Amino acid sequence: MSDAVEHGLSVTDEVIVRLEATQDPRLREIMQAAVRHLHAFAAEVRLTDEEWFAGIGFLTATGHMCDEVRQEFILLSDTLGLSTLVDAMNHSHVEELHAPGAATASTILGPFYVPDSPWRENGESMVEFDCGGEPSLLRGRVLDQQGNPVAGAVLDAWQNAANMFYAVQQPEVQPPTNLRGRYRTDDQGCYEIRSVRPTDYPIPADGPVGGLLRATGRHEWRAAHMHLKVSAEGFVPLTTHVFDDQSAFLRTDTVFGVKESLIGEFVLDEDGMRVCEFDFVLARSEP
Amino acid sequence: MSDAVEHGLSVTDEVIVRLEATQDPRLREIMQAAVRHLHAFAAEVRLTDEEWFAGIGFLTATGHMCDEVRQEFILLSDTLGLSTLVDAMNHSHVEELHAPGAATASTILGPFYVPDSPWRENGESMVEFDCGGEPSLLRGRVLDQQGNPVAGAVLDAWQNAANMFYAVQQPEVQPPTNLRGRYRTDDQGCYEIRSVRPTDYPIPADGPVGGLLRATGRHEWRAAHMHLKVSAEGFVPLTTHVFDDQSAFLRTDTVFGVKESLIGEFVLDEDGMRVCEFDFVLARSEP
Repeated sequence: MSDAVEHGLSVTDEVIVRLEATQDPRLREIMQAAVRHLHAFAAEVRLTDEEWFAGIGFLTATGHMCDEVRQEFILLSDTLGLSTLVDAMNHSHVEELHAPGAATASTILGPFYVPDSPWRENGESMVEFDCGGEPSLLRGRVLDQQGNPVAGAVLDAWQNAANMFYAVQQPEVQPPTNLRGRYRTDDQGCYEIRSVRPTDYPIPADGPVGGLLRATGRHEWRAAHMHLKVSAEGFVPLTTHVFDDQSAFLRTDTVFGVKESLIGEFVLDEDGMRVCEFDFVLARSEP
Repeated sequence: MSDAVEHGLSVTDEVIVRLEATQDPRLREIMQAAVRHLHAFAAEVRLTDEEWFAGIGFLTATGHMCDEVRQEFILLSDTLGLSTLVDAMNHSHVEELHAPGAATASTILGPFYVPDSPWRENGESMVEFDCGGEPSLLRGRVLDQQGNPVAGAVLDAWQNAANMFYAVQQPEVQPPTNLRGRYRTDDQGCYEIRSVRPTDYPIPADGPVGGLLRATGRHEWRAAHMHLKVSAEGFVPLTTHVFDDQSAFLRTDTVFGVKESLIGEFVLDEDGMRVCEFDFVLARSEP
């Protein structure tokens, strides 16, 4: 017999009225919209008691799967395409440009980023522990949208090993800084990252998200890629991937991360090295 | 460069197309609707990277707060009105009837239900440990919609102590079966539950849900009530509360659980006992 019910409001309206007391206007907007969409979802499918309880159990198990090195809620967001949607909305200035000089497209961060990777010299290898794989060299330049080199730009790179795992997933096998490194562009804006060719890999599928993928008839594979954050003073920071054009999962990447402009070729050179040339174009930040 | 993107689909459409592979048609319907509403929410508020990350952190903390005796996701569902909405949708046959003989309204289960409470005789007290409070007697009949007594109906009751906690919240203070009990109606459909008068109490507010309540300018109080599950063979099981009409929080119950028809009077008798007369009316289940 709340005020709202007395005035004939639905429970949805009642919650929204109750949230009017929120001081922060942005939090109020977000919470009212969240309640409206959450209730609309439940009403549309006429969620049963049992399904509601299964949902509570799923979210609880997802939370329990999270620890310092495993972020199951990010995996959930990724596999439901939410991460890609949020990324696209916040970096749409990039998406809208397809002309020459367009800034490089961003894509999702993923759950395996670890800050403070070791600084490495251009041409230095990120391989600290041999898990096999083809030797590779990712190289190119960081440019502004007019094609001028950006000297001193930082490329913070991380990738999985040929055994398909990131170092952070295998603390008893790989050293923690294996296949991670920060590089700086030289005066010509050039960088060189020596590594191993990225491989397709399954996202961690032994938790609730893996169960949901199987229940919905989906695979757990990501298209082979190296992750990079590229940043420089005066430019909008970029979080992106470089994908391998030979991956079998470019069209069905389980986290919806692939963009055509981020696909590179890893060409075999005479020394047996897979070389990928890739330039990153940064947008200047607002003055 | 997925198939969907190649055909000009949005990421939302792409996820929905991907979910077409779900074998169970009900799971497919639920997941596709969930993705549609989740994306619509994020698009409507133009969720930023930082807000997305704060949301991931909130859900993770909510999961970490859950253990055998604490269900923070149910608290979240309750305080967002989702539990009341789901209850209303699934028991609307009850809501639609307001004529004499209407079945008793249901309300939410809440996070403190523990199955297998001890069997007690009619008139026996559920108090196994004295936490103060006014002695009370909840009594009445279980009836069918024609007003006939239902003999052998089970009333599974649980409530908080006068110190505001449920036994399950205070394993080192209260015995686990304190203020819980299962009663059976006699041949006339009568029951008698001796206990203490329920008190208003705050939901557990030391976790993420409490933080959200404070950030949204809301209090954490529930209107005083006793919980009951009422069941009998051939009838639709009922999960409900009996509220105390003297509660200060009937209009602002933080989980939106109050219904006017569930409010009772706890009248002081000559022995200093608070007596509440309350009949439960059950709907027959479909034959």
